[in-house]
Amino acid sequence: MARVGTRPENRHQARLLRLLRDSGQQSRAELGDAVELSKSKVAIEVERLADLGLVDVVGLAASRGGRRSQMVALSRRLRFVGIDIGATSIDVAVLDGELNLLGQDRAETDVRRGPASVLEQVIDLVAKVRAGLAEEGAPVTGVGVGVPGPVSQAEGALVAPPIMPGWSRFPIRDTLGAALGAPVMVDNDVNVMALGELHSGTARSVRDLLFVKIGTGIGCGIVVGGEIYRGVNGSAGDIGHIQVDGHGPVCACGNTGCLEAAFGGAALARDAEAAARSGRSAWLAERLPHPSARDVGDAAAAGDPFSLALIRDGGNRIGKVLASLVSFFNPGLVVIGGGVAGLGHPLLAEIRSVVYRRSLPLATGNLPIVLSELGGTAGVVGAGRLISDSVFATN
Amino acid sequence: MARVGTRPENRHQARLLRLLRDSGQQSRAELGDAVELSKSKVAIEVERLADLGLVDVVGLAASRGGRRSQMVALSRRLRFVGIDIGATSIDVAVLDGELNLLGQDRAETDVRRGPASVLEQVIDLVAKVRAGLAEEGAPVTGVGVGVPGPVSQAEGALVAPPIMPGWSRFPIRDTLGAALGAPVMVDNDVNVMALGELHSGTARSVRDLLFVKIGTGIGCGIVVGGEIYRGVNGSAGDIGHIQVDGHGPVCACGNTGCLEAAFGGAALARDAEAAARSGRSAWLAERLPHPSARDVGDAAAAGDPFSLALIRDGGNRIGKVLASLVSFFNPGLVVIGGGVAGLGHPLLAEIRSVVYRRSLPLATGNLPIVLSELGGTAGVVGAGRLISDSVFATN
Repeated sequence: MARVGTRPENRHQARLLRLLRDSGQQSRAELGDAVELSKSKVAIEVERLADLGLVDVVGLAASRGGRRSQMVALSRRLRFVGIDIGATSIDVAVLDGELNLLGQDRAETDVRRGPASVLEQVIDLVAKVRAGLAEEGAPVTGVGVGVPGPVSQAEGALVAPPIMPGWSRFPIRDTLGAALGAPVMVDNDVNVMALGELHSGTARSVRDLLFVKIGTGIGCGIVVGGEIYRGVNGSAGDIGHIQVDGHGPVCACGNTGCLEAAFGGAALARDAEAAARSGRSAWLAERLPHPSARDVGDAAAAGDPFSLALIRDGGNRIGKVLASLVSFFNPGLVVIGGGVAGLGHPLLAEIRSVVYRRSLPLATGNLPIVLSELGGTAGVVGAGRLISDSVFATN
Repeated sequence: MARVGTRPENRHQARLLRLLRDSGQQSRAELGDAVELSKSKVAIEVERLADLGLVDVVGLAASRGGRRSQMVALSRRLRFVGIDIGATSIDVAVLDGELNLLGQDRAETDVRRGPASVLEQVIDLVAKVRAGLAEEGAPVTGVGVGVPGPVSQAEGALVAPPIMPGWSRFPIRDTLGAALGAPVMVDNDVNVMALGELHSGTARSVRDLLFVKIGTGIGCGIVVGGEIYRGVNGSAGDIGHIQVDGHGPVCACGNTGCLEAAFGGAALARDAEAAARSGRSAWLAERLPHPSARDVGDAAAAGDPFSLALIRDGGNRIGKVLASLVSFFNPGLVVIGGGVAGLGHPLLAEIRSVVYRRSLPLATGNLPIVLSELGGTAGVVGAGRLISDSVFATN
């Protein structure tokens, strides 16, 4: 059985583990072809990985015209925990080595209650999901965590997160590591969602892509060569404060006309309430005192012209920012996710229309712009990918 | 002597060659420390590189308290040729293995004369520079070429370049390779200039940076982890057609309000001529019929308020685009280069002011925004870096 902290011993073993995670069980012969190692060398490395408890030999492959090769899979005892902490909810999943979901649960929370209370709730939720799998005593291989704010990976902590008072530099990694007895990696929620898409969403075969999260706020996960690009201070992808309107509303950041102040869940709710109170939308008026972004989507689907215009206007603003970023970054795919992405087709249609009209033809010729297929599970799967990238590496 | 097409035989040799290129001569002991190889292994690899004619043993190092270690340097016979083809000029340099300039020259041209005529002129200019070094018969190690348009690296050719009729898919790489008897790499001029900055400019120690070229047009070289990022179609960094003004002038690309239509050499010259003809600038009127971007810079330096306003307005537009890109990409450095960067301080001051005001504090906290130190040599040095990266690699 894999002991806590077990790691591959060399880069060949690390590559074999990632290959088995991403492509599932394979014969020793196929593994040798994929990592360009001789038969005897693959045999040695697979044997070592089996000794370490990281892989299982699960049978014999079909013959390729000689002796039948052993089938190798990641150990069935590997258990990654993916945690996605949002402003008002916690999602937890237990995943196997291939990052398949074995169990998951969600709880309401309020991050303003502070890290001690919220992390206690996280630990209880993890225990609950594991109890459901009858695995309470078994070791955890690793834990990945997504949090809604800027993260210092070196500290395993948030740094001055705007919406999370009391969390700055609180040791999330060390707290969860001590409680769950496993290595922990913490990252920004948008990066974690982008990793989830990369692992099992639309983005599986794409190496350079943008994942745009439109939730309460707006952010972008940047994938370069199959890896998250974080920038020199870890703030890359923070597109919510790009200016879209010189005379727009004042943003929480102090500037005027930020993308996030013009669109996103909080801005939509604000505009919906104003429209409801001023009589511009009878549909939204039924949702007073506090119509939500979701109510705007429902109203639009029911034919409310004001709500539809609100979504189109927001899509137009997102589209203009994305058009610039597509010209600059020339990605192979743009995925739109987050709660507000639930507004669906009218939003996507407007974004596509602006990007395809305003970006360079060379950059948009083969560029798909799609809604996330994973929806709510992108975060927990991505958190599992984050920690498995770390566990399946030499260091 | 290095034969044409000589390459390192393994990745250790490749790393040693790049290290010697970037850091100059070193003792075998220092090389071993840097690439984490044992003494005996380094000795073997250095001997092989010497046999291949790629390095020279140049003496003995100072003692570190035992036997004195051999000093190793790149072979003095290595010769890279850097070529920077612009719309109206050709720059050629001959460089040693460390990419020091041994000789250079420049010629006026007109790329609209077509590739056969212009490349003949390039080949003549290379011969002239080499003749000046009395090296006409010696072999060329490799040739790097920057061209002002989108490049397919696989074809070694331009693809549908807007300002170069007749060049699309013309085999630049194969034509120059046959004439100069050496491997050739072709890339976009902005990427090549960014490589030049990375090699010997302000950017030496930075791994993630943006190089913004403001010349006749406007483009951006993107460096991620010390390598050029090209995007999925090779068009990454094409920022000249980002919209900065919904009601701005019509651009050559067919859209309205592109950055390049609002600012850059061609736009400055157009605005200067209009101001001169309408009497808004007596200074520019003296330069009729065709005041240039350079005249605008001279007029501003001489105190012409119209020219100064023109530069400030352009800097403001560039600054707004850069502010978005800095929030998105979180670079460690922004370098401004190209002919219009010669407008100097008023332009830089305006760009800085907008970026520092409009980007996230986390992204701009330690962000230097500087003018290129290399000026005209960024292109030829970068072209040398481009081909040496390829020659000093196993493949």
